[in-house]
Amino acid sequence: MKKELLYEGIAMALEKQIRNEVLKPGDKLPSLRTVCSEQGVSMNTATQAYLELERKGMIESRPQSGFFVSAALKKKLSIPGMSTPSATVNFSDTEALIGKVYHSLNDPSIVRLSLGVPDEQLLPVAKLNKGFVEALRSLPGGGTGYEDIQGNLKLRRDIARWSFTWGGSLTDEEVVTTAGTMNALSYCMMATTKPGDTIAVESPVYFGILQLAKSLQLNVLELPTHPLTGVDPDALKKVLPHINVCLLISNFNNPLGSCMPEENKKAVVRMLAEKGIPLIEDDLYGEVYFGASRPKPCKAFDEAGLVLWCGSVSKTLAPGYRVGWVAPGKFKEKIIHLKMTHSISSTTITQEVVANFLEKGRYEHHLRNLRRTLHHNSLRFISAIGDHFPDTTKVSRPNGGFILWLELDRKIDTVDVYHAALKQNISIAPGRMFTLHNQFNNCMRLSYGIHWNPKTEQALKKLGRLIKNMY
Amino acid sequence: MKKELLYEGIAMALEKQIRNEVLKPGDKLPSLRTVCSEQGVSMNTATQAYLELERKGMIESRPQSGFFVSAALKKKLSIPGMSTPSATVNFSDTEALIGKVYHSLNDPSIVRLSLGVPDEQLLPVAKLNKGFVEALRSLPGGGTGYEDIQGNLKLRRDIARWSFTWGGSLTDEEVVTTAGTMNALSYCMMATTKPGDTIAVESPVYFGILQLAKSLQLNVLELPTHPLTGVDPDALKKVLPHINVCLLISNFNNPLGSCMPEENKKAVVRMLAEKGIPLIEDDLYGEVYFGASRPKPCKAFDEAGLVLWCGSVSKTLAPGYRVGWVAPGKFKEKIIHLKMTHSISSTTITQEVVANFLEKGRYEHHLRNLRRTLHHNSLRFISAIGDHFPDTTKVSRPNGGFILWLELDRKIDTVDVYHAALKQNISIAPGRMFTLHNQFNNCMRLSYGIHWNPKTEQALKKLGRLIKNMY
Repeated sequence: MKKELLYEGIAMALEKQIRNEVLKPGDKLPSLRTVCSEQGVSMNTATQAYLELERKGMIESRPQSGFFVSAALKKKLSIPGMSTPSATVNFSDTEALIGKVYHSLNDPSIVRLSLGVPDEQLLPVAKLNKGFVEALRSLPGGGTGYEDIQGNLKLRRDIARWSFTWGGSLTDEEVVTTAGTMNALSYCMMATTKPGDTIAVESPVYFGILQLAKSLQLNVLELPTHPLTGVDPDALKKVLPHINVCLLISNFNNPLGSCMPEENKKAVVRMLAEKGIPLIEDDLYGEVYFGASRPKPCKAFDEAGLVLWCGSVSKTLAPGYRVGWVAPGKFKEKIIHLKMTHSISSTTITQEVVANFLEKGRYEHHLRNLRRTLHHNSLRFISAIGDHFPDTTKVSRPNGGFILWLELDRKIDTVDVYHAALKQNISIAPGRMFTLHNQFNNCMRLSYGIHWNPKTEQALKKLGRLIKNMY
Repeated sequence: MKKELLYEGIAMALEKQIRNEVLKPGDKLPSLRTVCSEQGVSMNTATQAYLELERKGMIESRPQSGFFVSAALKKKLSIPGMSTPSATVNFSDTEALIGKVYHSLNDPSIVRLSLGVPDEQLLPVAKLNKGFVEALRSLPGGGTGYEDIQGNLKLRRDIARWSFTWGGSLTDEEVVTTAGTMNALSYCMMATTKPGDTIAVESPVYFGILQLAKSLQLNVLELPTHPLTGVDPDALKKVLPHINVCLLISNFNNPLGSCMPEENKKAVVRMLAEKGIPLIEDDLYGEVYFGASRPKPCKAFDEAGLVLWCGSVSKTLAPGYRVGWVAPGKFKEKIIHLKMTHSISSTTITQEVVANFLEKGRYEHHLRNLRRTLHHNSLRFISAIGDHFPDTTKVSRPNGGFILWLELDRKIDTVDVYHAALKQNISIAPGRMFTLHNQFNNCMRLSYGIHWNPKTEQALKKLGRLIKNMY
């Protein structure tokens, strides 16, 4: 939607070189003068590009010497390997664990590295509040009435329009709003399965999805998943005869942070369509990308109407509003009927507030800031983990979202880490929450969707020390 | 909660006499002077009592002659008989019909007699809007954050406190909030059944409940139900060996308007407890009573923790807020887990607004006005039906809620009435929506939860004429 600015293009290109280690930590960057002449831009543009990279913590200026790739990026941590889900089911104590982790959701005394929820300080609260006052005035009855079952028309129109940014061409008629993404996933699973059916998911995968599948009495098949490229299409291909539906967090998967390459998305959509198997796509992090453009969802390649594309503003704007949506392809009537049956309609006023926020371009503006902050945070986190955690720690390198996946030494049980950290008012999410099998016991998920300040760094330092003491 | 005022007691006593036909339409009432001396009250109090009855349309003053029981109450319409559900399932076209009826939900050009939703003009919109502005200020982050999974603590405390008005003694710990009553019923059914189980319900019964049961793949057993006293306890007793759960709208049933006598409630709770069968109690109309006090729900007699008591403010305050709750007895942990799994949490801000509204006594004040208006409306409706509908029309006599159930001549198909009425911009709910069987084809549901004005009366007149033309 937005035209990329000149300086952003230059910053992006340099960033890519740093990420690909063409430029290594400590390397000197070309002088501003060189950038000007090579790129044919003004000194002002070149300076803006470098300031942008500095804000992100990727480069640092040294007085009288110029700009260098940040030393903080130096410490090399490995990336976790491809997951290889085992077959042992180990679910008994996991539910209790999830309940506990959730319980600390609203305790402000805890540094909540455990939860995939954006920190209030990252949200445009004042603007949203203003939007509420506007909506109370403009909505008939101040939003006391039920809204249309399919959802707020303006919001559906906004989502449809927005789909152009990822190569989609949705119409408002194709969108159904829901009370957040989990609510959308719940209806999608109900619409595409019956008890006893089998669903294929990534592994590790957001525990809520496992719980949901279990509550609908589905069998869950966990697929090998790579921290960079997501689900393995070949592995999926092999299980096609045994599954009824597939659910993927295609962009910046929770918890791995993986983003499926476009060719994998196309391949997956094609192979599922051939067998007539629906794909529930959980794309709730798609807008939080750190690269040059929004990664396309699988929905962009859906010709058969078999992709149920789900999203929300819960990870970017306001979790507590419960505003999400689904473009369910050929399952639309079923989804509308399920929504009507299980909850009648969504909350009228929060949908109106979000609709206006999108319509007025406020969302786009906010997202730009949010992406920058989260990208910055991700680098700070990885850097701090490099400084304070054991050297053998493996950590993911997400290009979006706000979640890191860490793999510790095999002998470490992250449930022990969880309990020990909580005593120091830090919460983490142990790896075994993200599987139905006996695995990921030495892994954990950390959220960097929080305000970065000395307290945060201190918490990571404490956490690292605590883990080192367990080695 | 509120101490009954002197004049209200007098008005109530007279009203009872009128209802029981001790005083008949056209009868002269005792003079104000007589009321003063007999009841030992001031002239002011006596006058207030009569004005109250006049406002309700139960009595009318004739200049120089005094007060008389309203002639509008004269025309005697029969009450429908006990339902006798048949066994033939006839569901195919019902879903489409329900979709159609719902579709006219927000069309302001239609006189919506079809839907059990209170008219905006009956809601305290200005006060609620004010409450929003307060909540935006007092809630951290303006309600952008997730709230506690179990629900807003203030709201749960209010509901617990409020339970004293119906003989309950709930604590906040026993209450879980939901996105409206249907959402509560959805979790309750999921918590107490598995696919293939059998649920017993009233007949006729709110179509949403049938749809919900169907979507969870339950078998539905419809029980004989009386328009005044509700479900037949003997009929329930007979089917106990065949059911897994029972769902009742115990107070002012939708669509019959029946209210179970206390002894029936006790008997039902007892017989279900003996077999360990859970009772899902849908008590969403309980606060809208026209008698002297709130009828107790079955929950008041629940010793085994087997009654899952559900309510909301959707029928009294703001359908679009999606604020409801359940006190699920021993199913609490299951319900919390289902809520977390299927939607994470409820909308933060609307729960806060409702919590404050209850806490500040605004709800009680509003309910008093709402009850009076709806009671008045019910009498106006019954009177207009008596004036304009065929003499053989049978109509329910609800003592609360805002729904009437009409039985027309056997040869009338109310789906035809629905289509014909819609052409005249009037919507009704055909009887067959309220059953899975081939019955109630000559019945319909009318809502009097709308603003009474000449347009409403005109609509009832048109509807009556239209039906007469079909005879």
